[in-house]
Amino acid sequence: MSAAPEFGKVVVFGVGLIGGSFALALKATEQVEEVVGFGRSLATLTQALDLGIIDRVGANAGQEVADADLVLLATPVGQMPEIMERIEPYLGADTVITDGGSTKADVVAAARLHFGDRVGQFVPAHPIAGAENSGASAARADLYREKKVVLTPLPENSVLNVARVRSAWEWCGAQVHELSPGQHDEVFAAVSHLPHLLSFALVHGLTQRPDSNLYFSYAASGFRDFTRIAASHPEMWRDICLANRGALLKELDRYRAQLDELRVALQKGDGAALEQTFSIARTARRGWAEGQGKP
Amino acid sequence: MSAAPEFGKVVVFGVGLIGGSFALALKATEQVEEVVGFGRSLATLTQALDLGIIDRVGANAGQEVADADLVLLATPVGQMPEIMERIEPYLGADTVITDGGSTKADVVAAARLHFGDRVGQFVPAHPIAGAENSGASAARADLYREKKVVLTPLPENSVLNVARVRSAWEWCGAQVHELSPGQHDEVFAAVSHLPHLLSFALVHGLTQRPDSNLYFSYAASGFRDFTRIAASHPEMWRDICLANRGALLKELDRYRAQLDELRVALQKGDGAALEQTFSIARTARRGWAEGQGKP
Repeated sequence: MSAAPEFGKVVVFGVGLIGGSFALALKATEQVEEVVGFGRSLATLTQALDLGIIDRVGANAGQEVADADLVLLATPVGQMPEIMERIEPYLGADTVITDGGSTKADVVAAARLHFGDRVGQFVPAHPIAGAENSGASAARADLYREKKVVLTPLPENSVLNVARVRSAWEWCGAQVHELSPGQHDEVFAAVSHLPHLLSFALVHGLTQRPDSNLYFSYAASGFRDFTRIAASHPEMWRDICLANRGALLKELDRYRAQLDELRVALQKGDGAALEQTFSIARTARRGWAEGQGKP
Repeated sequence: MSAAPEFGKVVVFGVGLIGGSFALALKATEQVEEVVGFGRSLATLTQALDLGIIDRVGANAGQEVADADLVLLATPVGQMPEIMERIEPYLGADTVITDGGSTKADVVAAARLHFGDRVGQFVPAHPIAGAENSGASAARADLYREKKVVLTPLPENSVLNVARVRSAWEWCGAQVHELSPGQHDEVFAAVSHLPHLLSFALVHGLTQRPDSNLYFSYAASGFRDFTRIAASHPEMWRDICLANRGALLKELDRYRAQLDELRVALQKGDGAALEQTFSIARTARRGWAEGQGKP
């Protein structure tokens, strides 16, 4: 005998990797009766239907969200404000909304603007499940298993609404954590957005040399690891950088100060200072990797 | 019927990953009659003997190099000058010497100083076969297979001596290329030494925050790739940075100019400039990876 599903109707805007995997995970745990999908590309929606990610392609967003238990905004962050504006007038009183955006302060600002008095129904989230691939065909029921999802609840959120959104991500297999939107953006500026910027900068710099082919031809495994994220999606990362500009500028300046210190040590030939910096980094990196259980 | 081995006696200083793999590869292709090993640690030498990497532990370096066909210096670069000084008076007229150091201008300078008139017998090399592990137990006969080895021949080298050293590395399965020592150091400053410095700096910077644990706890796959090389050996990288200080400082300054440009774009909210930089980087990184046949 199985219990009744926790969510009757779930509406997903954007049925690619993030939204599709969310739908598949809830379906796999039988926690949803019906998933309705919206998206900009009919081809993607049809593919999502064929793959069993969604049960129906939505026609009228207002109508569909009126009796939805849960809405997920899983489009690029830049498209969210327009969707918020479109659905706000029709939101059911018991409908709870979450999202999958990589930045949070900007999404929260858009939610305040467009949801107004109903912003308490929106519980922002950031699933930390990066993947090289994207699109409905990349969606997997286990994408979020043992991955972190960061909720950044708002003062306006009821305890019940936070619990419902938490529960949805937990059904997906995720470990749910909470940060404030500002704290979230500061942390991810440092551990994700800055490294992407640095990696893009290194590869871009190499391409600007007249003899860049010679340089690329001798790049090996260290370069491969360091620059893997320089193959990330340019538009997505442009949007993340702009959305989290303040925190990212602060991290970039902090990092430049680090480089200045290393430059001084290098210039002076101060081997002890270099070794100490490298040694502290190595110990921390090893400790981190051990904690993660992966190299 | 198998041909006679190309090298009768090979003497290896440093029987760890680099020297041990060289010995194993020449043995596997039956291109050596006898390998004699030297090293600072008797335990490592005994292990190398047990693993069949060397046939004998050397007792007297001068005596052993006098009738050696080939000598490999595979110790950390910092130990090479002393070994050069020690063996120079005893070098046989037909003995050719190569090395496995990651920097070349400093090794060449030491060779000129200590080998003097015999510097023509030394053909510098840098095998591009990074590995997380080190020591004799990590040595493998196939470490160099399809890896690049860069020779940086000297004007004093005879064509024959360059050919003999090239042949030894080719028997190891390597693709042998040639650069000048200065060119080598410039290229590797850009594609290897700088990325290591940048990765160390990022992790070190995180450790300096009072709330560093919070930051590390949200680091994910992008961070993992970017910082894998920050777990590299601190002393080894201190030595590389110092040995290649001039070229590395130049690359660091060039990189800081890249960051300055990105900072301006970020500050101005210039999404088009950010996207263009990211896009050029992505295309180059993907093109490079396709050329390498690995992601």
